[in-house]
Amino acid sequence: MPRLKLTLEYEGTRYVGWQVQPNGPSIQSTIQDALQKLLGERVFVASAGRTDAGVHATGQVACFDSPRVLPMKAYTMGLNGILPPDIAVVAAEEVAPEFDPRRWSRGKRYRYRLSNRRTRSPLLRTTHWEVFAPLDVEAMRRASQALLGRHDFSAFRAADCQAKHAVREVRQVRVEGVSGETMAVVVEGTAFLKHMVRNLVGTLVEVGKGRRPEAWVAEVLASRERKLAGATAPPQGLVLEEVFYGDGPPPRSAGDAAVGEEDEG
Amino acid sequence: MPRLKLTLEYEGTRYVGWQVQPNGPSIQSTIQDALQKLLGERVFVASAGRTDAGVHATGQVACFDSPRVLPMKAYTMGLNGILPPDIAVVAAEEVAPEFDPRRWSRGKRYRYRLSNRRTRSPLLRTTHWEVFAPLDVEAMRRASQALLGRHDFSAFRAADCQAKHAVREVRQVRVEGVSGETMAVVVEGTAFLKHMVRNLVGTLVEVGKGRRPEAWVAEVLASRERKLAGATAPPQGLVLEEVFYGDGPPPRSAGDAAVGEEDEG
Repeated sequence: MPRLKLTLEYEGTRYVGWQVQPNGPSIQSTIQDALQKLLGERVFVASAGRTDAGVHATGQVACFDSPRVLPMKAYTMGLNGILPPDIAVVAAEEVAPEFDPRRWSRGKRYRYRLSNRRTRSPLLRTTHWEVFAPLDVEAMRRASQALLGRHDFSAFRAADCQAKHAVREVRQVRVEGVSGETMAVVVEGTAFLKHMVRNLVGTLVEVGKGRRPEAWVAEVLASRERKLAGATAPPQGLVLEEVFYGDGPPPRSAGDAAVGEEDEG
Repeated sequence: MPRLKLTLEYEGTRYVGWQVQPNGPSIQSTIQDALQKLLGERVFVASAGRTDAGVHATGQVACFDSPRVLPMKAYTMGLNGILPPDIAVVAAEEVAPEFDPRRWSRGKRYRYRLSNRRTRSPLLRTTHWEVFAPLDVEAMRRASQALLGRHDFSAFRAADCQAKHAVREVRQVRVEGVSGETMAVVVEGTAFLKHMVRNLVGTLVEVGKGRRPEAWVAEVLASRERKLAGATAPPQGLVLEEVFYGDGPPPRSAGDAAVGEEDEG
């Protein structure tokens, strides 16, 4: 039974999120349904991490054991012919039978897109957080640098986050002014706590609006108090862009910053 | 009765186009429905030009006579509260009672977006033409320069185009490589024949794929033969970005290149 690694793009708008849930269609169940049509039997599809309802991906990674040996095109072109228009396989490859998309992950990159137009935008509404206020991109950029490195991110973790501890390493934060009206916050790290990117963005937006000083972001981080941070940014601005892998599971040490930890961005 | 000019953004995906038609909801009827709720009576809304089913706008201009004098916010915030999420008023202003969005137009700018990814893209599917092949952006850029200036664009006009003549002036053509995977063709001109931008793009893509030499675009233009040009590019890549106005109708002369002519991009 070959193990297949799929790189997936999806628009999360009409899904309850990655994970199978009783209240609506999930990305996971939709892919499992499509694979059932392709393979003639039900398979379980694992991913590098959950994404919430409304969250998108251009580089989610999923994995399953194929009960049939098909040409690789069947898992790309073939599967794309069965999947709905808002989910697609970008690439497929056979991987080692031990490959685990979550445990083997060495990091992820997310992009969060914002609009600061004063009126709502039909063409940005499903892919941007519409803030409806001018944002000081330079202030957000300077404030964001406090997040770099290895920290206890308890202040930016959802109340129901299941992770064993909150130490994570942020490798890169970029605040990009895309145009006068739109911008993006790009965050790369070893792993992420539930709602971590959306909570970081909600906090940076407080600085961007001028409601809080730049140094406040570092204070919130140091406090480890979720209630001090900004509100959770809405899901539609978030895109899981890439999951990074090496030739095997990442090396681990006692103080490891949760490489390969289950996360939900 | 004040005359109001509205600048509109819309995602055309689920509409039959600008104009009222029996086979589904139109942008025009949806705006007229919303204004009826706001004003308590039916008004007619004129636009700078039709857009086809699936075509988008960030700067369509529409106009109507308001039977009630309301604060300007009612025509922006108020109307946006009634309109569906895929249509919005970006700006509203009172204009001269003689203002005519079509006849007063001095030009328009359209953007046509393409993807040359090899697999289909859920996040680009409603806003890009997915060509599924590498495109030579430099070759398309050089070939596009033949379109600049005043020409008879009969080769790029839809068979059912109603315009009196086919002479139009293209002021600017830019072929922009947006990223390795996406690009845009931006066309600005006095006015456009039905499907003109989509036919120009369909022709440039033949050059971009290497199926035709760069000089072929000039040959097609000179031939005035629609059947020689490339296929009509699909609607979802097209955005009407801006309509240009002066203080009154544009000056006209006998050989005028159809400034203010009815057009459909």
